[in-house]
Amino acid sequence: MARFNEAYLNLNASYLFAEIRRRTKAFTDRCPEARLIDLGVGDVTQPLPPVVIRAIHEAADEMARRETFRGYGPYVGYEFLRAEIAAHDFGARGVRIGVDEVFVSDGGKSDNANLQEIFAGDAVVALMDPVYPVYADSNVIAGRTGPADSQGRYAGIVYLPCTVENDFQPALPDRHVDLIYLCYPNNPTGAVATRQALARWIAYARAEEAVILYDAAYEAYIADPEVPHSIYELEGARDVAIECRSFSKNAGFTGLRLAYSVVPKELSGRAADGRTMSLNALWARRTAIKSNGPPYITQRAAAAVYSPEGQKQVRALVDFYMQNARIVREGLGAAGFTVYGARNAPYIWVRTPPGVPSWDFFDRVLAEAHVVGAPGGGFGPSGEGYFRLTAFGSREQTDEAIERMKTRL
Amino acid sequence: MARFNEAYLNLNASYLFAEIRRRTKAFTDRCPEARLIDLGVGDVTQPLPPVVIRAIHEAADEMARRETFRGYGPYVGYEFLRAEIAAHDFGARGVRIGVDEVFVSDGGKSDNANLQEIFAGDAVVALMDPVYPVYADSNVIAGRTGPADSQGRYAGIVYLPCTVENDFQPALPDRHVDLIYLCYPNNPTGAVATRQALARWIAYARAEEAVILYDAAYEAYIADPEVPHSIYELEGARDVAIECRSFSKNAGFTGLRLAYSVVPKELSGRAADGRTMSLNALWARRTAIKSNGPPYITQRAAAAVYSPEGQKQVRALVDFYMQNARIVREGLGAAGFTVYGARNAPYIWVRTPPGVPSWDFFDRVLAEAHVVGAPGGGFGPSGEGYFRLTAFGSREQTDEAIERMKTRL
Repeated sequence: MARFNEAYLNLNASYLFAEIRRRTKAFTDRCPEARLIDLGVGDVTQPLPPVVIRAIHEAADEMARRETFRGYGPYVGYEFLRAEIAAHDFGARGVRIGVDEVFVSDGGKSDNANLQEIFAGDAVVALMDPVYPVYADSNVIAGRTGPADSQGRYAGIVYLPCTVENDFQPALPDRHVDLIYLCYPNNPTGAVATRQALARWIAYARAEEAVILYDAAYEAYIADPEVPHSIYELEGARDVAIECRSFSKNAGFTGLRLAYSVVPKELSGRAADGRTMSLNALWARRTAIKSNGPPYITQRAAAAVYSPEGQKQVRALVDFYMQNARIVREGLGAAGFTVYGARNAPYIWVRTPPGVPSWDFFDRVLAEAHVVGAPGGGFGPSGEGYFRLTAFGSREQTDEAIERMKTRL
Repeated sequence: MARFNEAYLNLNASYLFAEIRRRTKAFTDRCPEARLIDLGVGDVTQPLPPVVIRAIHEAADEMARRETFRGYGPYVGYEFLRAEIAAHDFGARGVRIGVDEVFVSDGGKSDNANLQEIFAGDAVVALMDPVYPVYADSNVIAGRTGPADSQGRYAGIVYLPCTVENDFQPALPDRHVDLIYLCYPNNPTGAVATRQALARWIAYARAEEAVILYDAAYEAYIADPEVPHSIYELEGARDVAIECRSFSKNAGFTGLRLAYSVVPKELSGRAADGRTMSLNALWARRTAIKSNGPPYITQRAAAAVYSPEGQKQVRALVDFYMQNARIVREGLGAAGFTVYGARNAPYIWVRTPPGVPSWDFFDRVLAEAHVVGAPGGGFGPSGEGYFRLTAFGSREQTDEAIERMKTRL
């Protein structure tokens, strides 16, 4: 028998969303008549915008004719899409990003899981806690950690607690780290980073020669004009930060799959002997070896998002979900819950009642309100005592879920 | 500056297809009026089959309505597609593959590059030589090799020469190896494996407790009824082999991106302390951590391939390209070249004239016939003295390329 990658043995046995599914199924097996409302997994429910559908049809027709058929595309994505991204997502905000700094991929999950590959195997990783599990798990199976302790914290990872005590803003690490995963607007807490907070992170990364992996998947939900949309709006970020974006939560691409990462030309890594290497070149090489780029059709669909009509339709989708967020925030607030997030993010981070652990609260909400949420503890030890709801339901589901939680809990 | 993954320093500086592009561009800069014909990169040129186009349109319309919209799909692919794969690609040949042994992905390149991740970092890899560069490069950046020697052979990899002297059938490794990459029908030589040859590999893998990564991307081109389409047609393969398939070269999905791997439940790996682990479970876990599956639309497109109409249309595509292969084989044979492959594979493997190195022959064919091929030496040292042409051009291009090579060289 060939030897397997033993780093997998360090993974926590249960995966948050798998355990949610298991408990949900156990409940519906007991109560098959319950009409469940799922605000647990952060998946969108509204259909794709009409411009996107039209672009898919048109691209499909191109693929049907020999003259316009497209085979293998560029590994890093078509220039027509990368140019739109550079111009609209950055240029329009006064941020200069080169087309050759944009790498199109099949998902933010893939980017967030794969970017660690270009760094040294013994790089020290810092994570916000609570956190999107992919950042941790991808580093675990890459062998950068030991096993988890009883609270689920992997040995070797530097955890940065984000709780109400620090206003969900993590302190800087108290030791040297090499890679820092930051997610703003944050999943799961819904917190945002001010310019001052980001400037502090950039200064830290410059001083420690660390790299920030900045996940801005929920950027479209920022309503406050003072909150930066890209880390590159801050001076000095191009030397220390990679930014990931996705079309999943703005344009509803969770089932269509498209995302991108930005790796500025100024970013370098060093070898043990002091030689330096462009991280942009490394990521380009990695992409060329392991990918043929996302489908032409989905790249055309993504480019359509940047048309004036597309921008309006995406804005309407985001507004719709943010109205859901307001309904949840205000409804649960009126019912006496303490609620965070939901103002610049599609996540509502609810304090569980005093003394109620988050999995117990999950079970209670499921059993009494027939609503599926996500227990804060599943995102990390510092999420204990919280509960996440998403704004991605339909309006009817959202209204009814809150009505049930107000009256039945 | 953060330390980068130094295994990248071991990669050969030049990538075959990049060097082909560079030389081609230099030529067209000198001779802008030349009408080049590209039979170099193995990319298809015929449009997608009508059933596939129809399925894309229908799936797009589903994504446009809230009632039928699909968000995140199963990490490993939708069951509707995995069931078709298990039934048609395997069941119809008397091979029993479970739906939960099929993992749908966005490409054969990704699967062939990613599968090594579930194995130990010090696993010894055996490769056919010449070979598809992705198998080697993905193991290089995973740190399983040293740098390459002057011929391009990476230290630590066991190379298995495939030349006319051994009828393009590699000998078994003369030392223990853990992972064996086999590709049949072969890219680039066009050779196939008989049942006897595969049985010998399976016996070797069982004796050495090795795993075979069997790349059957060109399976649809097998014309000889004696040649197995799947390694699982052979007894004992389920204990030692993972098989990769793709929709790229049968249904023309190079720009649409869909593939799958089969990891049988019988496959296990072991830890240093003797514990065993299901490789199917490991690959499922890896997939869950790093992917959200391919787009719903492309999975519907792939499922359409298995309809009776789809099967007919794919057969017509394959027949079309195999007619091209015959034209190249017979044309170059009549012109006095020694030609291999092209009978059960879409690649024609041409002997260069005595004493002419393959890059020199590449340059000569480009300069005199204005045809782009691929130099055998670019696929590995044992490819030196050969030249690859693909059958994936249009009929007009193929006819004219051969006419030019017959008359101008």
